[in-house]
Amino acid sequence: MSNTIQGFSKLSKEEKIKWLKQSFLTNNPKAEAILKQYWNTDVNLQQLHDEFIENTITNYYLPQGIAPNFVINNKTFAIPMAIEESSVVAAASKAAKFWMSRGGFKAEILGTEKIGQVHFMYTGKESELLALFEASKAELLADLKPLTQSMEKRGGGITGLQLINKTEALDHYYQLHATFETLDAMGANFINTCLEQLSETWQRVFASWTSKPENARLQVVMSILSNYVPGCVVRAEVSCPVSELSEADGIDPQEFAEKFVQAVRIAEVEPYRAVTHNKGIMNGIDAVVLATGNDFRAIEAGAHAYAAKEGTYSSLTHAEVKDGQFRFWIEIPLALGTVGGLTKLHPLVKLNLELLGNPSAAQLMEIIAVAGLAQNFGAIKSLTTTGIQKGHMKMHLMNMLNQLEASKAEKEQAVTYFKTYKVSHNAVHQFIEALRKKTEK
Amino acid sequence: MSNTIQGFSKLSKEEKIKWLKQSFLTNNPKAEAILKQYWNTDVNLQQLHDEFIENTITNYYLPQGIAPNFVINNKTFAIPMAIEESSVVAAASKAAKFWMSRGGFKAEILGTEKIGQVHFMYTGKESELLALFEASKAELLADLKPLTQSMEKRGGGITGLQLINKTEALDHYYQLHATFETLDAMGANFINTCLEQLSETWQRVFASWTSKPENARLQVVMSILSNYVPGCVVRAEVSCPVSELSEADGIDPQEFAEKFVQAVRIAEVEPYRAVTHNKGIMNGIDAVVLATGNDFRAIEAGAHAYAAKEGTYSSLTHAEVKDGQFRFWIEIPLALGTVGGLTKLHPLVKLNLELLGNPSAAQLMEIIAVAGLAQNFGAIKSLTTTGIQKGHMKMHLMNMLNQLEASKAEKEQAVTYFKTYKVSHNAVHQFIEALRKKTEK
Repeated sequence: MSNTIQGFSKLSKEEKIKWLKQSFLTNNPKAEAILKQYWNTDVNLQQLHDEFIENTITNYYLPQGIAPNFVINNKTFAIPMAIEESSVVAAASKAAKFWMSRGGFKAEILGTEKIGQVHFMYTGKESELLALFEASKAELLADLKPLTQSMEKRGGGITGLQLINKTEALDHYYQLHATFETLDAMGANFINTCLEQLSETWQRVFASWTSKPENARLQVVMSILSNYVPGCVVRAEVSCPVSELSEADGIDPQEFAEKFVQAVRIAEVEPYRAVTHNKGIMNGIDAVVLATGNDFRAIEAGAHAYAAKEGTYSSLTHAEVKDGQFRFWIEIPLALGTVGGLTKLHPLVKLNLELLGNPSAAQLMEIIAVAGLAQNFGAIKSLTTTGIQKGHMKMHLMNMLNQLEASKAEKEQAVTYFKTYKVSHNAVHQFIEALRKKTEK
Repeated sequence: MSNTIQGFSKLSKEEKIKWLKQSFLTNNPKAEAILKQYWNTDVNLQQLHDEFIENTITNYYLPQGIAPNFVINNKTFAIPMAIEESSVVAAASKAAKFWMSRGGFKAEILGTEKIGQVHFMYTGKESELLALFEASKAELLADLKPLTQSMEKRGGGITGLQLINKTEALDHYYQLHATFETLDAMGANFINTCLEQLSETWQRVFASWTSKPENARLQVVMSILSNYVPGCVVRAEVSCPVSELSEADGIDPQEFAEKFVQAVRIAEVEPYRAVTHNKGIMNGIDAVVLATGNDFRAIEAGAHAYAAKEGTYSSLTHAEVKDGQFRFWIEIPLALGTVGGLTKLHPLVKLNLELLGNPSAAQLMEIIAVAGLAQNFGAIKSLTTTGIQKGHMKMHLMNMLNQLEASKAEKEQAVTYFKTYKVSHNAVHQFIEALRKKTEK
């Protein structure tokens, strides 16, 4: 087959790029220069980043912005956000400022439990297996000691171990279901290492089971942590008297509050809306997850599964007006780390954590939940008042101008013009064309 | 409140950094240098990236790697992946190579329908509202013409418009539910602009309704696309005779196939496993979504909601052994764009699309679904054979060595040593310490 290769991973970065050029990019004489223009000029720093993953050829830039003025539990934060989408940082900043003068955000941890499972198949009577499990539980835990002792010293470790019968879902299917407290670590490596040991001990225990029934067989299928963490949840909230919801834009506070609550109710009952509603929340969440070196795929999977936990996909935020008080809150599972992984390795991640006051994992859960709530507040506020396109297209204006290769002077005139007129692809196109025709004359 | 600020967005990038330093980073004399070391030396290129979002202060680096040897529908691809997690690119490359000699990946588009809704509240009889809707449908569509005509010229546009009664879910709640074909655009701006026009026309039609019942009221709550796109779905598959599943590592092919299918069955029936199973799929998917300038939050939200569509969160992939044939496949909604957004603006995104042969949105759906399937194949293969930690910790070894500030010579010795011994944080720590003690002597 053409364009396939043996031993690609063993090539140097230069050789990898050369092969890509020859095989796929022959029509672009600038290909190599484009890849290399993103290399850092500091060779050691570049090598550090290259070694984070395999077959690295360059750095993918995500812009990192700052959303200031977040008051959370009476402390002020400027939150770093790494994201490619325009208007997310602006919306977060605007929501932060709005709530800054209305008591700020309150956040609290509801739980920090992590989960891992040894999935196995067992043929035989359940009662006998349960007896074996109970009899060997101490041995299962004892074998973990060398792996858990350092975590235990700091107050964490394995917090529970159960045998679960899942044969109603699938013939012969059982689990060892373990719960963990991993403190400031996200804990994936710790949990997976523990689970593989549990699996090993469990198989050994089974093999040496002296009163094993004749027909009993055990096969471990896999041992792995779960990113579904409904016991590792944070809650964040804003509230104020409805009368204080008014702003310069002159919307009636009572009407705004009612419409806002209605928009959230719609996201609670209609999955088509809930998915986009939560997607907006994740814009805020992932941007901070990325900037702090955490794994956004794990966070996304856990959050959306949580949104679907009642059987219908629903909103992660909720709102109410009661006795003249407006309340808006989020409950979301967030398994985060502020040690391990990239947190100490990526110089920018390290600095971003410092910018946030070197939070514990629990504090970071609070900050990130607030970023999600703020994002959702901004989105619903736009959607229920001016519509989302007005703000979004304004933010997107600079991208459109760059695509038209607008000069600095053209950009300035466009920004002034579109303060009054509606931004659309067509309108921006026509404005720049007209400007250029005028200049030619 | 201390550390809050007015007019942050109006400060220059230098001024923003200065304020951050003074307010939050007083203890780190290197803070400014760290932020600036990530700036591109090409001022124009840096400005371009700065303008993608708001309040930009620097670039967040995600390493971009290459997974070669992907044969998809008989064509070979080297897939660009932007991701911070070690072992994802290696696993994708390994799976690609495995299937390259077994017929490669087959992929097909099952649908490309996008969705948007005008959510509104109506008091009055449904039958009367329905009559109004039917009578004014032509007007609703006519008003969209100026917005849709350029998309229609290329074969896309609005493909359906319905009035939906949702009053069983929420009192007075109705929708205008619209479907769209947006061709190579992801279509968010197009759809949202259409929906806001639909909302405007609908309100006008309602206001001028001559036979309006006395008690009839209409209030539009919001108009917005849905990221839940169960009609925009791609299917990717691999298959081969079970006997061809053997590899150098000496696992019995029949046993491997059965265990593999069992692992997928577990992810189908057990949400705790399904979430992590799908998280692994999204490792592969998001890495390519990012590298091609698409919006991973939209993809994540749509994929996980799809995984939960039957009422229980379940696996996105499926597997079977039938008549001696092993089959493994994925069905996943992917609303992607290869025009618009960042695709033409971000120089690296443009090059990555070129590397993939400048695919249409549909072709990119196929490539990205395959990346997800390959990732999942690699994960399940590891999990059901050697366990995931062995490979993962090997990949993570370099990160641990960098954290210990290992020299080049130390790294080389460690890599050789850990070819034989089990990698763990403790083991690496002890190995490097021992090495350094030896050198001191």
